[in-house]
Amino acid sequence: MKRMFKTMMKSGFLLALAVLAVSVNSCEKRQEVTLANESTIKFKTPKYVFFFIGDGMALPQVRMAEAAISEQAFREGFTEATGTTLDRTELNITKLTATGMATNFAENRFITCSAAAGTALATGSKTTINTISMNGERTEFLVTMAEKAKAAGKKVGILTSVSIDHATPACFYAHTEDRNNYEIIGEQLLASGFDYFAGGFVRHDTYENKTKEQYIQMIKDSGYVFTQNRAEFGALNSGSGKVFATIANMDSLNHDDMSLPYNIDLDIQKTDDDKISLAEFTRKGIELLDNEDGFFMMVEGGKIDWVGHANDVVSNVYETVAFDDALGVALEFYNLHPEETLIVVTGDHETGGLTLGFAGTYYETAFGMLVKQNISFQRFSGEVREWSKAGNVSFDSALVSLENAFGLGDTTIGLKLSDYEISRLKNAFDLSMNPRGSKISYEERAVLYGSYDPLTVTATHILANKAGIGWTTFSHTGLPIAVFAKGQGEELFNGYYDNTDVAKNIMQIGGYNIVE
Amino acid sequence: MKRMFKTMMKSGFLLALAVLAVSVNSCEKRQEVTLANESTIKFKTPKYVFFFIGDGMALPQVRMAEAAISEQAFREGFTEATGTTLDRTELNITKLTATGMATNFAENRFITCSAAAGTALATGSKTTINTISMNGERTEFLVTMAEKAKAAGKKVGILTSVSIDHATPACFYAHTEDRNNYEIIGEQLLASGFDYFAGGFVRHDTYENKTKEQYIQMIKDSGYVFTQNRAEFGALNSGSGKVFATIANMDSLNHDDMSLPYNIDLDIQKTDDDKISLAEFTRKGIELLDNEDGFFMMVEGGKIDWVGHANDVVSNVYETVAFDDALGVALEFYNLHPEETLIVVTGDHETGGLTLGFAGTYYETAFGMLVKQNISFQRFSGEVREWSKAGNVSFDSALVSLENAFGLGDTTIGLKLSDYEISRLKNAFDLSMNPRGSKISYEERAVLYGSYDPLTVTATHILANKAGIGWTTFSHTGLPIAVFAKGQGEELFNGYYDNTDVAKNIMQIGGYNIVE
Repeated sequence: MKRMFKTMMKSGFLLALAVLAVSVNSCEKRQEVTLANESTIKFKTPKYVFFFIGDGMALPQVRMAEAAISEQAFREGFTEATGTTLDRTELNITKLTATGMATNFAENRFITCSAAAGTALATGSKTTINTISMNGERTEFLVTMAEKAKAAGKKVGILTSVSIDHATPACFYAHTEDRNNYEIIGEQLLASGFDYFAGGFVRHDTYENKTKEQYIQMIKDSGYVFTQNRAEFGALNSGSGKVFATIANMDSLNHDDMSLPYNIDLDIQKTDDDKISLAEFTRKGIELLDNEDGFFMMVEGGKIDWVGHANDVVSNVYETVAFDDALGVALEFYNLHPEETLIVVTGDHETGGLTLGFAGTYYETAFGMLVKQNISFQRFSGEVREWSKAGNVSFDSALVSLENAFGLGDTTIGLKLSDYEISRLKNAFDLSMNPRGSKISYEERAVLYGSYDPLTVTATHILANKAGIGWTTFSHTGLPIAVFAKGQGEELFNGYYDNTDVAKNIMQIGGYNIVE
Repeated sequence: MKRMFKTMMKSGFLLALAVLAVSVNSCEKRQEVTLANESTIKFKTPKYVFFFIGDGMALPQVRMAEAAISEQAFREGFTEATGTTLDRTELNITKLTATGMATNFAENRFITCSAAAGTALATGSKTTINTISMNGERTEFLVTMAEKAKAAGKKVGILTSVSIDHATPACFYAHTEDRNNYEIIGEQLLASGFDYFAGGFVRHDTYENKTKEQYIQMIKDSGYVFTQNRAEFGALNSGSGKVFATIANMDSLNHDDMSLPYNIDLDIQKTDDDKISLAEFTRKGIELLDNEDGFFMMVEGGKIDWVGHANDVVSNVYETVAFDDALGVALEFYNLHPEETLIVVTGDHETGGLTLGFAGTYYETAFGMLVKQNISFQRFSGEVREWSKAGNVSFDSALVSLENAFGLGDTTIGLKLSDYEISRLKNAFDLSMNPRGSKISYEERAVLYGSYDPLTVTATHILANKAGIGWTTFSHTGLPIAVFAKGQGEELFNGYYDNTDVAKNIMQIGGYNIVE
């Protein structure tokens, strides 16, 4: 019954889109818009729209990344780990000329989630927690800017570093009651007819009715070219038609939910096939999607959020910089087509309660202390789990591993551990080795470790704190998101507004907004 | 020798300003400026410039205040405590139409201080920590926008809720090696010839060479009308000439450094004479300064910072709202003179590492829990000090006081204390009662309590945390400041830039910037 209801709604919905397409084709190519300050701007309706979303990225993450990459040793470490040269000391993000701040509460919660925030950013409407591009009561579909762009004759690309059916990308092509309905989202993905899906794969590990192989067959049956290694990916070209491009082996590494690897862990990937970066997927997307009617491309840096949840500062910088690398590709394109392009960059919410100051370090910061970490929280947690299973690792041996992985204890860069810090690590180590043997309350455990491996999160906390950085939560926060824009109509993104306005502005500027 | 050097520099400096004045009088009244995005804006050189600085106020403080005042009970509490009706659910700040984000590092430290940040905002030049409008080496004076405005024939007003010689206001009229040179700053204040000083008094308690009475006589000898009660203040009018307006009794309440009272404590002030608000000082300033050549007015909300250092959420909201009230007065004036006015609002730095999320409350917030606090951290700390001296207050009795002051333990608004929270309060209570009897390390104490009274800060932390709010430091952080602007030339404040650019833009727009 529920599914029939959905199908009916979908039919009506496609009809509306067809009408929309007609209207859009007759629209003007130049626009004049009155801004909130009553001044008027004129711009050309851009043929190309890029929408970059850093999941869990707000102003603190952006500033921290810039502070870290101002350290030459950090840039060298990034270059070595990822194989992508990092030689800039400022981000591309902060070079965009229009800036705004946007509230992002959900319909039913002050602190939003990626589904409700993604729906706001994709459709211009508020919704409830966990809802994917449906209204808050989950009775109606909300048309997304990607669907409108497609109906308006644009080619459409959806890219992400996490699974392609994760909440943020899903909000651009799917409509379902719950972000965890991965199998439904996977079906809707193929029904969307969008031109380019790239990055992570689908969460087939959660499917009830089909195997991974069956889903891959469905991809092909839906008219997509499917690639999962560097050679196939490299061979794609503007004649390839619709494409679903991902990498293999995701599910073999760290149980990491069909996403691309953490950038800080790229150096341990088995093959170059597993190292296609978000920037490379973006560059290929431009090649595949460029056509005389233009394109809409959404690019998500999804793991900024994941490492934010885990309070892992160094991995957070790696993910933010890799996202910024992808933006760099779009900026190259912008520079060739400035009169025809709009680029918007924002986050869906802040994750972690990140701050650039810590009580124990007063007014001092020391970003140079971040250079020795060479492993994600995720991979280190995997090692700690193995220790716990084996039951034969001493605390002294753990301290050696902590120095190797995070630099903790390395006095050459000021990372001598204090008695207080060692006692925090020892308490965490004991809990990691024997999770049921602890006497601390559930409440204290939630505050100290969240749902993370106690030793790992204590290590990343201590490293952050020594560098002068703080975290307050393992969840999201209500800090307004930072919005950056460049190109046609960018002035609309200046000001203090709501996240739904980001979507409304993009649709207005892109000329997607004929049917309200 | 040092003082002679300063006097010589000051002479040459005044000469330069005289030349400046001639140039400015012949300048154009309309400007055309090319923005970073290469578009061009035209505006009228504004006759009136307001520069509002929330000390310790960045985007988290702004958003938290808006979240709190969305609660009707909070608005009612504010109205009752301050005697100023609060009936809006959004701040004036966030209604300004231009927005930017600005880095604010000092010349010699990533996390800035109010002196270095104030110098950047007042002069457009970076300097070192603690330096007041001199270069980083402290060998040269930096001309401030207020001095340039004065030289250009404007009347100038400097207003603050903290002492008028505190770092931020001092940066607009004084030039000295150290923000703590209060006696020198007090002399330079009177030598500035500025037209209106209002709000807090000078830190005469630190003076070596003169008494409070002698300084008041110097104020009068310098040609200022001096007022320190409501009747004298009310009698001021546009014919009063130069004015130094403050309140009496500041030094008798909570040893609070010659500042206006905390807004949350206004209800216990002895007389209405002590309750002149920043908004009232602003309104009077407009009346006194308005003239055909226009004015420049700097208004600081100085205690947002102080309650940020103390991690006192509720007092932070009170101070931010009172600052926003003063902005409301300027906006009323703007609405009468939109073609002749520029208003810029920013902070010098974020204080406290405030975030709108806490590990223990996951994705939930509950701003309704903030409504019972009726006392500043400062006043409660004073009470705790008395308990410690008396030595006869039990923990149970302290818990009753905590419920009366902060609402902690009040189950009607969800403030039931957990065992974990009670144990945190008990540890803090023991330390407050017997500061030398503690076994915790200096490092742990710094992280838990900073330099604050342990019981008070634990109470404000627990209240914040239960409401879903976190703090990471008792110092400042490196979060970029948020900039808001409205009026002539406002577009220059959109974008991501440095705090020195805020000053450069104001001086350019105001036409103060003839001599570089």
